Amino acid sequence: MGAGLSLENLRLDLSAVEKEIVGFIRGCVEEAGATGVVIGLSGGVDSSTVAYLSVRALGSDRVFALILPSTTTAKQDIEDAKRIAESLGISYEVVEITPIEEAFAKACPRFDEANLIAVGNLKPRIRMMALYYYANLINRIVAGTSNKSELLVGYFTKYGDGGVDILPIGDLYKTQVRWLAEHLGVPKDIVWKTPTAGLWVGQTDEDELGIKYEELDVVLYGLIELSMKPEEVARKSGIPLSKVNRVVEMVRSSEHKRRTPPVVEVQKHRLSA
Amino acid sequence: MGAGLSLENLRLDLSAVEKEIVGFIRGCVEEAGATGVVIGLSGGVDSSTVAYLSVRALGSDRVFALILPSTTTAKQDIEDAKRIAESLGISYEVVEITPIEEAFAKACPRFDEANLIAVGNLKPRIRMMALYYYANLINRIVAGTSNKSELLVGYFTKYGDGGVDILPIGDLYKTQVRWLAEHLGVPKDIVWKTPTAGLWVGQTDEDELGIKYEELDVVLYGLIELSMKPEEVARKSGIPLSKVNRVVEMVRSSEHKRRTPPVVEVQKHRLSA
Repeated sequence: MGAGLSLENLRLDLSAVEKEIVGFIRGCVEEAGATGVVIGLSGGVDSSTVAYLSVRALGSDRVFALILPSTTTAKQDIEDAKRIAESLGISYEVVEITPIEEAFAKACPRFDEANLIAVGNLKPRIRMMALYYYANLINRIVAGTSNKSELLVGYFTKYGDGGVDILPIGDLYKTQVRWLAEHLGVPKDIVWKTPTAGLWVGQTDEDELGIKYEELDVVLYGLIELSMKPEEVARKSGIPLSKVNRVVEMVRSSEHKRRTPPVVEVQKHRLSA
Repeated sequence: MGAGLSLENLRLDLSAVEKEIVGFIRGCVEEAGATGVVIGLSGGVDSSTVAYLSVRALGSDRVFALILPSTTTAKQDIEDAKRIAESLGISYEVVEITPIEEAFAKACPRFDEANLIAVGNLKPRIRMMALYYYANLINRIVAGTSNKSELLVGYFTKYGDGGVDILPIGDLYKTQVRWLAEHLGVPKDIVWKTPTAGLWVGQTDEDELGIKYEELDVVLYGLIELSMKPEEVARKSGIPLSKVNRVVEMVRSSEHKRRTPPVVEVQKHRLSA
């Protein structure tokens, strides 16, 4: 069916995309008067891809990585993050964030470790602090690693992993990030690893989102790039309407995460106005 | 001189402003499906004013305050923050952030306490984490306390005190916040206290900015509200052009703090596009 909606519609000219992003990273660093970028490496495909692109843009000397594990981070992910940094020849440091979480828990009289959301959000915010701490020390900007799928459904922590200076892969759907990663030479086991935010043990993106990326990306492509109505997306993709509507709701309810905080205009009440 | 530029030009219909902001706070809480707001109280005029406005919008039961002192916080400020919370009848908790800072310093192998900027930015980011931690626990949104003067010159920490859900006084210049505070009945000693970000002992906003708010606000009013050129602002206000130009530069170089992180567009490189 020619009018069908599938992942094939998301295929990219990967060389052109690479060139575009490399120029963007270079331009942003220059405009900021910075000496390079700081990246949080998780061992996943998104941060690995941003690291590869940053090295192509700036050279390995101007890319610094932080590996920021907690007790819920898989050992394999730490090893993978180190492997990426070492194979790219970029300097990195490992900062264990658990003691900072523990200090936070002790400082808050009402700390409730059973609240997975409240506790889960601490980790990405501590990581943001660490990335900016190093960025301040060595005059770098923070390169974010969020992709378009995550950004659109709000699958990130406001002022946590969402708190960055630039979003090099922010216009690429997750599936497209994987394709670009393969094109750049990111090791295949990292490209095709099960995505997780790592906020608690056993967490996977797709369980939490309730949809697989291969479906999510098709739905978002129809809704966002083609401005289709949910019914049309469902009909053309073969994905149940209920699932499409859930994505619509995720996009809507996370809108506040993608904009600056609202301000109420009051200058119209100037007496001289 | 009728065409002169002075603080008098910034006078407001304070009752209309109060009404506008109260409606804004109420509307934002409702839209978010939240039960109220969380505010970080510093004992200064900005956060006191936001607390007063929030109580008028929501009632004291739906306003929760955190007082977040560090070792560089003046005792008087903590007492003032408590006095505001108690006089408004709002619940509050005191969370000492220094142990969290210390845990962070210990976790970072390269920690350099001599770097005032890198270290200074930690405090507002820890405060942001604490405000959101409580907001998550009790289903509230975080009301920011930045004013228009600070926002325009970038006198705030990105993803720190700048990391909030709404900005109730974000369109009010500092001088106007003081006027509104007096109108609302905030105690005069708090209204006219020397403003400080409290990031190190003895820090004051005006020393750090290199200009007094009474001048800064006139300059910003001319540049922003009246879209004047720096030369015109200097001529009409009597403030030296060099000072006006320094403000222009602060506004320009902090632009990245007032927008969402830039994303490079790549969907145009879709093969099917």
